[in-house]
Formats: sequence, C-alpha cells, structure tokens
Amino acid sequence: MKELIDRIRKQGKVLDHGILKVDGFINHQVDPALMDLCGRELARRFAKVGATKVLTAEISGIAPALTTALHMGLPVVYARKTKPITMPDTVLLTVAPSHTKGMMVELIVSPEFLGKGERILIIDDFLATGSTIWGLVRLAQTAGASIVGIGTLIEKAFEGGRMSLAPLDVQVEALAVIQSMENGKLVFNE
Amino acid sequence: MKELIDRIRKQGKVLDHGILKVDGFINHQVDPALMDLCGRELARRFAKVGATKVLTAEISGIAPALTTALHMGLPVVYARKTKPITMPDTVLLTVAPSHTKGMMVELIVSPEFLGKGERILIIDDFLATGSTIWGLVRLAQTAGASIVGIGTLIEKAFEGGRMSLAPLDVQVEALAVIQSMENGKLVFNE
Repeated sequence: MKELIDRIRKQGKVLDHGILKVDGFINHQVDPALMDLCGRELARRFAKVGATKVLTAEISGIAPALTTALHMGLPVVYARKTKPITMPDTVLLTVAPSHTKGMMVELIVSPEFLGKGERILIIDDFLATGSTIWGLVRLAQTAGASIVGIGTLIEKAFEGGRMSLAPLDVQVEALAVIQSMENGKLVFNE
Repeated sequence: MKELIDRIRKQGKVLDHGILKVDGFINHQVDPALMDLCGRELARRFAKVGATKVLTAEISGIAPALTTALHMGLPVVYARKTKPITMPDTVLLTVAPSHTKGMMVELIVSPEFLGKGERILIIDDFLATGSTIWGLVRLAQTAGASIVGIGTLIEKAFEGGRMSLAPLDVQVEALAVIQSMENGKLVFNE
C-alpha cells in the first residue's frame, strides 16, 4: 500500500540487528488516520474469507487489528502477555520468542473469547520470522477455532515468515513488503 | 453515554476487591464499533481544548485513545510499560501503582514524541484512584508539555480520582460514571 510504504521510507529507520524502527507512526506514537487506512485495506483484502473474529497480540498489534476489525464489523481479541486478575484461572497460554525483546514471551487468551468453530483472521504489525503469529495460530487451534487469514502491516520478506506459514494454506497479506534492509537501505517489493 | 452504560449493565461483572470486569468489550476482547462511538463522543467533548496530541498508557488505553485521536485528527502516543530496544537510551520514565496488578508499573515515553509546548489530552479506559493518569501527567509535565483535558470511558467515582485531579484545573470527562458497586450492584450516575 503506497501510503504505508511512503511513510516507512520517510520516517522508518533501520537499526542494528535487523530492527526496523517505526515508532513514530505505528508502535509508540501512532498515526490514527494511517492505521484507519491500513485497516480499511486489510478489511478489503480479507472481505471474502468469512472471518468471525480478529485475533492479535498486545501491544503493537492492537491498533491495526482494531481498525481492521472496525471495517469488517467484527470483534477483536488481543492476546495478553501477562494474565490480568480479571481473567479466569484457566486460560489458553503459549510461549513465543520475541524478536524485539530477545526473550520468550507468553501469549494468553481467555477461553471465554476464543472458542470452537470461530473463523479467525490474525492481524499484527509485523510478519518477520512468523513466531508470534504461530503463537496466535496455536492458541486459536487449541481453542478449536480455524485460521482463515493472516494480515500484517509490514513484512520483512527476508526473514522467512511467509514460507513458515505455508502449511496453514491460508491467504497471507502484508501492506508493505521489505525485500532487504542490507547496509541500512530499505528495498521494497512493489 | 447511553450505549456504553447499557453495555456495562449487560456484560460488565463486579468481581472481588472492587474490580469491574469489562474484558468482553473493552480490554481483552474489544468491540471496535463501540470504541469508535466512544472515541467520537470524547472527541466531541474535547473539541475546543486545543489539544495537539493524545496520550495514553498501554494496554487498555490504546483502543479508546486511538479512536478519540482518529476523530480529532491528532497523533496518539501510548506510554510503554517496558522499554523496547527501538527506544533511545534516555527516556521519560515514571512509576505508578497498578490497580489490577497490585504492584508498581513503569510508564515510559520516548522524548522524541512528547515535547515542550505540546497540549496533551490524556485518554484512558478507567478513572479510578487517578494514579495511572497522574503518572501520564508527570511524564507530560516533565517533557514541558501541558495537560488540556482528561477523558476516560469509565469512572469509578467512589475511588476519588476526579478529586485528586482537581489541582490540574482541566476538563475531566467520563462516558460512564459509576457511583457505587456495593454488593456487586452497579449504580450509575445518569
């Protein structure tokens, strides 16, 4: 999506260790108009998959998942990384390595809000190695739900996430696909 | 706001220790249409305060802050509770007691996104004792910004947050004001 790619070109910064800094408009300061546009586009691309719920992971996934769900008329559930006291004693929990934290994080969903027969559209900010998204897939499948699509704002194509998701055989979409960040230079797949 | 009060009546649950469980539509599963409506109403109430930025705290504040900011045409910044590696070494940090976690949490904002002269509208899900909101106030004031308004979805009026905020002398709005939750019964101020 041109608007997102243009913004990454303008404001994104390539840091060491393959980290793309987009915290001026996606994950610390957020541009709501851009998020709304991205949500509208993801909703358009997934209009025909028959999703009944959007699933994401806190924290950075919340903004794009909320706007996508808004434009699809669906509820959105965000997996928590710590269990709040409002959650029941027994929960769905998986662990996934965090790229930006360099450690394993927990992803926790209450069984009240993820159940058998649900058709889940997963939305997140990044598709990199796919490890967080696989965590969400495991939660949904354990609950007896099925995955009907996976959408992200940005894909770092060189980290192999899309290939890792191939066994799911579902539509995978990213609004800005980065082919390379070598030597700090962003190359998009347009 | 009638739609929010009705939803709390229908789906909210009073738990022990004065906790109101609203994780079916606000802070685990989210109803995007309701959040959009709440954001529109908060934007209307704060239309004249001259805000330049919306500030909230992850995690539950993100949804209402995003929709409010969207309807005001402003950027939104959410204070992080852990410092991601994309943030500069030197940050604005304060600590505040968390009501639902029973411990102190850190609230961290990058000085890149909160600066001198900004006019800050604080949006959060709950106004209870006001301790999280005071944390956000301290961050903004330390950055040299001023507070021009404080809006929340739900106010637990019996916890005294509104009175604690009085010295700021700014407009404080809540879309659903709960007067009492004694014996598990919700009494709204309508």
